[in-house]
Amino acid sequence: MKHVLITGAHGFIGRHVARHMAAMGYTVSGIGHGEWVPEKSKSWGIVNWITADVGLEPLLASGVAPDAVIHCAGSGSVGFANEKPHEDFLRNVGTTAAVLEFMRQRVPEAALVLTSSAAVYGNVTRLPIVETAETQPVSVYGAHKLIAEKLCVAHARLFGTRVAIVRLFSVYGDGLRKQLLWDACRKIRQGETVFAGTGQEQRDWLHVSDAAVLLALAADNASAMCPVVNGGTGKGTHVEEIVRRCFTFSAGAMTPTFSGAGRPGDPPGQVADITRARAWGWSPKVSCDDGVAEYLKWFFSRVAECL
Amino acid sequence: MKHVLITGAHGFIGRHVARHMAAMGYTVSGIGHGEWVPEKSKSWGIVNWITADVGLEPLLASGVAPDAVIHCAGSGSVGFANEKPHEDFLRNVGTTAAVLEFMRQRVPEAALVLTSSAAVYGNVTRLPIVETAETQPVSVYGAHKLIAEKLCVAHARLFGTRVAIVRLFSVYGDGLRKQLLWDACRKIRQGETVFAGTGQEQRDWLHVSDAAVLLALAADNASAMCPVVNGGTGKGTHVEEIVRRCFTFSAGAMTPTFSGAGRPGDPPGQVADITRARAWGWSPKVSCDDGVAEYLKWFFSRVAECL
Repeated sequence: MKHVLITGAHGFIGRHVARHMAAMGYTVSGIGHGEWVPEKSKSWGIVNWITADVGLEPLLASGVAPDAVIHCAGSGSVGFANEKPHEDFLRNVGTTAAVLEFMRQRVPEAALVLTSSAAVYGNVTRLPIVETAETQPVSVYGAHKLIAEKLCVAHARLFGTRVAIVRLFSVYGDGLRKQLLWDACRKIRQGETVFAGTGQEQRDWLHVSDAAVLLALAADNASAMCPVVNGGTGKGTHVEEIVRRCFTFSAGAMTPTFSGAGRPGDPPGQVADITRARAWGWSPKVSCDDGVAEYLKWFFSRVAECL
Repeated sequence: MKHVLITGAHGFIGRHVARHMAAMGYTVSGIGHGEWVPEKSKSWGIVNWITADVGLEPLLASGVAPDAVIHCAGSGSVGFANEKPHEDFLRNVGTTAAVLEFMRQRVPEAALVLTSSAAVYGNVTRLPIVETAETQPVSVYGAHKLIAEKLCVAHARLFGTRVAIVRLFSVYGDGLRKQLLWDACRKIRQGETVFAGTGQEQRDWLHVSDAAVLLALAADNASAMCPVVNGGTGKGTHVEEIVRRCFTFSAGAMTPTFSGAGRPGDPPGQVADITRARAWGWSPKVSCDDGVAEYLKWFFSRVAECL
C-alpha cells in the first residue's frame, strides 16, 4: 500500500487532499499545526497525525518514509504575508526547504507536490494565464511561493528529486473560513455592504474537491523535469458577481458596493489556462455556480448562527 | 557618524569590509559566528562584535540601528552546499530573510548590500558575463544565492527597501583558508600534484581589498531599484595558470596534473563584465599577478610551517 505524507493536513486544502488520497487507497500521514484527536483526523482519512512544525527535525523524527509528499503547509494568505512577511517566509519557504532536505536524506525516490499559487504571476497582461507567462509577483505571498518553487526546481535539477508544482487559483469550498466568500458572508451577517477593490477583479474559482484530485494526480506526474501546472477551471468570474450571489442568497434588502481602492498585492485578473492539467487527464467537475451555491448553503445554514 | 552593521564580519570578506568601512569613518558593528576578543575585533575596525546566529531575534536584540547593512554572512562554498544543502539554505537564504525583516522593522531607510556570487549564472555561453545574462545556477550554492537575491528584490519592490546586490567572482587574498589557492598550496606542502577538473576553467580573481571597496560603494548606490553589479576584474585566468604559479613559487621539482573530471557545480568559465561597477567609479587595483604573488608569500612564509 502506498504511503503519502501531507504537510499542513489540518488546513483547508490539506484535509481535502488527505481524504481524497485515503479514498484512492493510500495510507495517509499528516504533519503540521493544529491539535487533532485521532477520531477527527481519521474522519479525514489520516491514520497518523503529527502536531509539529513542518521543520527538518520533526520530519526526520517522524519516522515516516512516504512514497509521495504533498506539501500543503504554508500561510495561504496575501494579507497575512503583507502583515508578517518573515513569518510567511518561514511558513512558505522555510517549510519547503525542510521538506526537500527530508526527502533528499530519507526518501530520495519519493514524489513531491508543491502547492503553489497564481500569486506568482502578478499583474499579467493576458488572460487566461499560461504557465510559461512571466512571473512578477506583486505580493510578498507570491514572491515567497515563487521562491519555494525555485527551491524545488533546484533540488529537482541538482539532486534528481521528483517534483510537480501546482499553481492553484482561488480555491474554495465548504469549511473555508477566510478569503472572499467567507468575508462576504460575514459582512452580510454583520450588515456591512462595502467591499475593497472595484469588483471587476477576475478570479478563477476552483472547488477544493477538484483541487484535491489535481494535487493527487500531480504526485503521479512528478519528475526531475519538475512540471508546473495551473490549477483552475479556465473560467473567470468577477468578484462583484460572486459578492452579488452572496447577497442574493441571503435574501436581504442590501446591495454591495465597492470602494474602488485595490488591496495591496491583489492583481486585477487571475484566470488559468488549464491545457496542461487537462493533458494529465484532469478536468474540474464542480462549476462555480454549483460550488458557490453549496458554500452559501453551508454558511447560512450551519455557520451564520454561530457567529 | 554613520553606522554600518556587517553580518558575518568574522569571515574572510566580512573582516576586510569592516576594516575598510572603519577607515572610511563608519562606526562598525558586526554580528555572526566566531569568538572574537575585543582587541582582535577592534584590530579589524569593529567596535561592537556580537557572537550570534544571524537570525531575526539576535538582530532585534542587538539594539543596533545601522545606516547600512553589509550582509557577508553565508556559507561561501559550493562544496559545503553540495554536502549540506539545508545548512547552506539556512546560512544563505535564512539569514537574508532575517536581515530583510530586521531592516523592515527597525531601519527601513537603511541600505542593504547583499554579497551574492558569480555562481548564480551557472554554465554561461558567453564571456565576460553581463549582469543581465540568464541565471541558471548549476550548484546548490548558486541556487541559494539567487534565491537570496530574489528575496532582496521582493523587499525592494514591495517595501521600498534600498538594496544593492554584488555578485562577487573569485575573491582571494592573504588569510583565505579555502578554495583554489589554499588547496593548491596545501597540496604542494603535502607533496600532492593531482587537481580536479581540466585546468582550463577560467576564473576572475578579485583581491579582497578591491571587493571590500566595491561592497562599501554598493551601500552608497543601494536603492529600491535594487541594482545588481558584478564584482570581478574583467580578466579571466585559467585554473592551470594559477596552480602553476603556486608550484613555481614553491620552487619544488613537482608539476601539477589535472584529473579531467570536473567537480559538481563548477562551471567552466567565470569572467565578469564590470562595466556597471566601473560606472560607480570603482576599478580593481590589485592585479592577479601581484595578488597571487602576495598570497603565496603569505602562505609559504607564515602558514606552511604551521600545517
